[in-house]
Amino acid sequence: MDRYDSVESPTESTRSFIALVVLSQVFGLLAVVLTGVWLGKYWGGFSWTNASTVFNYHPLFMVLGLVFLYGDAILVYRVFRAYRKLPIKIVHALLHMLAFLFGVLGIKAVFDFHNALTIPNMYSLHSWLGITAIVVFGLQWVGGLIGFLVPQTPQSARSKLLPIHVTIGSFLYLLVIAVCISGITEKNFFSKAYPSLRTAEVIGNILGITLVIFGGLVFYLVQHPNYRRIDVISPERRALHE
Amino acid sequence: MDRYDSVESPTESTRSFIALVVLSQVFGLLAVVLTGVWLGKYWGGFSWTNASTVFNYHPLFMVLGLVFLYGDAILVYRVFRAYRKLPIKIVHALLHMLAFLFGVLGIKAVFDFHNALTIPNMYSLHSWLGITAIVVFGLQWVGGLIGFLVPQTPQSARSKLLPIHVTIGSFLYLLVIAVCISGITEKNFFSKAYPSLRTAEVIGNILGITLVIFGGLVFYLVQHPNYRRIDVISPERRALHE
Repeated sequence: MDRYDSVESPTESTRSFIALVVLSQVFGLLAVVLTGVWLGKYWGGFSWTNASTVFNYHPLFMVLGLVFLYGDAILVYRVFRAYRKLPIKIVHALLHMLAFLFGVLGIKAVFDFHNALTIPNMYSLHSWLGITAIVVFGLQWVGGLIGFLVPQTPQSARSKLLPIHVTIGSFLYLLVIAVCISGITEKNFFSKAYPSLRTAEVIGNILGITLVIFGGLVFYLVQHPNYRRIDVISPERRALHE
Repeated sequence: MDRYDSVESPTESTRSFIALVVLSQVFGLLAVVLTGVWLGKYWGGFSWTNASTVFNYHPLFMVLGLVFLYGDAILVYRVFRAYRKLPIKIVHALLHMLAFLFGVLGIKAVFDFHNALTIPNMYSLHSWLGITAIVVFGLQWVGGLIGFLVPQTPQSARSKLLPIHVTIGSFLYLLVIAVCISGITEKNFFSKAYPSLRTAEVIGNILGITLVIFGGLVFYLVQHPNYRRIDVISPERRALHE
């Protein structure tokens, strides 16, 4: 028995699904572009060799990797919900790997910046939660690989792991967005213009709102029972694909 | 067909359920106590008549109302998962009403503080997201009342609203925690001690971690299929209770 009874017709449901997926991509890309403009135009641009602007890669890589790619890695299970699972799993794992690599580069950028300017590392709540998030992200990835892509893992273990993997993954995703909000808050406070709002602070605030909307759309698409996977394969053949 | 097949035995599942509920309450109460100690001992205590400390009611009421009571209002559907629905709905609505009242008082505290010290209102990302969260919270409450407690609402409308109410409610809950994290970040930056960590900043950071753990436990208990409602009433009698 499903958690809810669906009362929407399949057509209605498909139409709202496509609209929400498109909208999610608009807000996801908007977040990446806003981050680029914010740091590129208002905070001095990007450079690995300039100690004062190397920091700018930090928010860019986090938004690109740990928000946009992470969100889309989740969404592949909805967007391709009528397709067989194995290729989707591989895309999910690859997007997450890319997200993780951006996350590591993003951490490198902020440590390089702090070390060059002899600013202490790891003092803020943002850094405590952020480092926890990336560690849990890495563990989730390894857990997902062993649990769902290694063929030897028995079906009973997979069934037990699946709701845990999905729940931790969804929570972690929203935690990453929360960490971004605290990071934007820090950046806006560092500007010393606050409480005055210049263009830079307004863009920071709008970026935060955009991230929340993107996160909300991904969460809604993943949670709503109407958008769940459609099993097109008979149970007998499913074993071959899972 | 359920989203996942449960492979845990009912006893295993009940044991882990009780442990997680107890743990959630420990972290929820710890968050409230930490907030009280943080502001009471390190930030000057509580008073509605003292312009410089009236602010301290803001985080206290937000953590007590919009995190702790909001979380427990969600959890009643799990803790009393084997009981009939109507009394649970009423407790859910009452706890949310209380949470909302604390939220409004919390907003009043920060506006009183800003106005007394002629600090501008509503400039930060924290305030933009916070005010949005409380407005959506109010709308969710009214929507829930009309959708699930007014007896005239037809069953088809309820079924359509339920997943939307649950998804928006869960997302909003985690958004509120994200807003708290940005609020703690602001408070820690206002101290001017950062990047040095005094006891006050360490407690702020630990409070943030505690809120995330509480939120994570509530989210896990709500999401995991093993902990869903157990329907003890026959479908014929259910109509009388829903």
